[in-house]
Amino acid sequence: MQHFADRLAAAVRAKGNAVCVGLDPRWELLPAELRQRHGAATLASVAAAYEEFCSRVLDIVAPLVPVVKPQSAFFEACGPEGIAAMQRLLRKARDRNLIAILDSKRNDIASTASAYADAAFGGTRLAGHTFPVWEADALTINPYLGADAVEPFLESARRVGAGLFVLVRTSNRGAGQFQDLLVSDGAMPPRPLYEHVGEAVAAWARQKLGACGLGDVGAVVGATYPAELATLRQLLPEVNFLVPGFGAQGGKADDVAAAFRADGLGGIVNSSRGILFAYPPDEPRWEARIESATRATIAALSLLTVQTGG
Amino acid sequence: MQHFADRLAAAVRAKGNAVCVGLDPRWELLPAELRQRHGAATLASVAAAYEEFCSRVLDIVAPLVPVVKPQSAFFEACGPEGIAAMQRLLRKARDRNLIAILDSKRNDIASTASAYADAAFGGTRLAGHTFPVWEADALTINPYLGADAVEPFLESARRVGAGLFVLVRTSNRGAGQFQDLLVSDGAMPPRPLYEHVGEAVAAWARQKLGACGLGDVGAVVGATYPAELATLRQLLPEVNFLVPGFGAQGGKADDVAAAFRADGLGGIVNSSRGILFAYPPDEPRWEARIESATRATIAALSLLTVQTGG
Repeated sequence: MQHFADRLAAAVRAKGNAVCVGLDPRWELLPAELRQRHGAATLASVAAAYEEFCSRVLDIVAPLVPVVKPQSAFFEACGPEGIAAMQRLLRKARDRNLIAILDSKRNDIASTASAYADAAFGGTRLAGHTFPVWEADALTINPYLGADAVEPFLESARRVGAGLFVLVRTSNRGAGQFQDLLVSDGAMPPRPLYEHVGEAVAAWARQKLGACGLGDVGAVVGATYPAELATLRQLLPEVNFLVPGFGAQGGKADDVAAAFRADGLGGIVNSSRGILFAYPPDEPRWEARIESATRATIAALSLLTVQTGG
Repeated sequence: MQHFADRLAAAVRAKGNAVCVGLDPRWELLPAELRQRHGAATLASVAAAYEEFCSRVLDIVAPLVPVVKPQSAFFEACGPEGIAAMQRLLRKARDRNLIAILDSKRNDIASTASAYADAAFGGTRLAGHTFPVWEADALTINPYLGADAVEPFLESARRVGAGLFVLVRTSNRGAGQFQDLLVSDGAMPPRPLYEHVGEAVAAWARQKLGACGLGDVGAVVGATYPAELATLRQLLPEVNFLVPGFGAQGGKADDVAAAFRADGLGGIVNSSRGILFAYPPDEPRWEARIESATRATIAALSLLTVQTGG
């Protein structure tokens, strides 16, 4: 069973870039042609439009990028049919040899956390059987509940060589309200909460490093905070960073440079709207536009990886 | 449109107790009769067993308690069919005039947070329509991302008179790893992170108080930390506390006394396994046992509410 970080590194090297395409379908931004054909009479028809759109996106990006990241919220917003569509899309991503990060920011304790984690990775275990559910390669999780709430996710992930990305410093404007609070645990000087969380992530990562020198527990660190990103890269050399906030949220290519280690690994840069919706809604050649937006994102970041030594 | 805290207070007064029954179905603990009849050949059959079990629980507890709390993880673990079962159970809870708190600890930013929140409460809004999804009365959320990630949930909830419960001090053994870190913001003495989060919750609650003097944003505070519970009750007089950890997790009736205000309001005490699985799996009269476990929980806590002046 290959280590998650090694699978991720191999995918990044094979594609020659570290771009993650976020699958965040939004009705108002979908190609007009798709919206007209499916209609929004029911959530089932919306889910069908989301699925067709994202399925085409997977076809387009599979030869180009190593990673995709379905955003669970938009599929859940369509109810059971949306969830079923997400399940099929995750399967398709896997069939296309894409690394699929399920972005659902789950968090809970004990056997409840295990229920989320088993569903995300190896499958729900009961009555002596294992039933596949999402079969994701990695999952985003929220650390507020502490180590004993993270460990069930870790245990589930390690059973099948999957990975975790723990929220450390998020990309939103108000991320600092709690994450930047200076906390003292006796260490001088006091350091922001996100550094404490980051160090816990590094400790989990070091429990099981891949051959590439990176762990199976990564950190979510927003592109919108390049200084914090740089500090965390220094502090956490063994930790993969999943970097949201590039593109539509304002993060620039230069801003994410600090995510990468000298060997060009260590950073996965997500773009959702900047790739999916880089065209006016009535653009008939939307598939070509998504392909060129993907290539443009890769070009911006490849340049960067070269500059930083990868 | 009635304020969430007033609806909750009316339900508590009508039933004469503040017990929340957690709907946490677990295959290995279900009545043997149900497991045999449905079987575990597929996740769909497991979901059907969960639905029948929880539906009977709703019948049993609806005349007795004011609140139920489906735990999303166990339904999600059954995939789309599990989610569909949860949707029908939420509808049934509403039809029985139970207050339904969807326990899914969601968290995200901006329009993604809105997608979760609209689905939880008033419905997914698109193409000029509103599509009901979960129609919960309240939702648990995780505060790590900060105020601008909480506000979309708040806005959605307030549109329909729903409520939020923000994780403040959770019930797990390792809750303190981050939640207890001392924050040095100049205040003397330094206070733990959970108090800072608690004060943010109080500020949101004070934006819109009900006639009962409580807000529509509550806090999750574990029964397993009675000292922290008491401190938070003093600090946050306008905040409803959802108190997990009673019963199976080790919290005693005395431990949750501090959750209640002098008027007997302010606390909702959850019990899941202690009510659902208070019998050996082969107990044929499991429905009667669930009813007596519910009554026993109510009795333990009613005594308490009287003692604290309610």
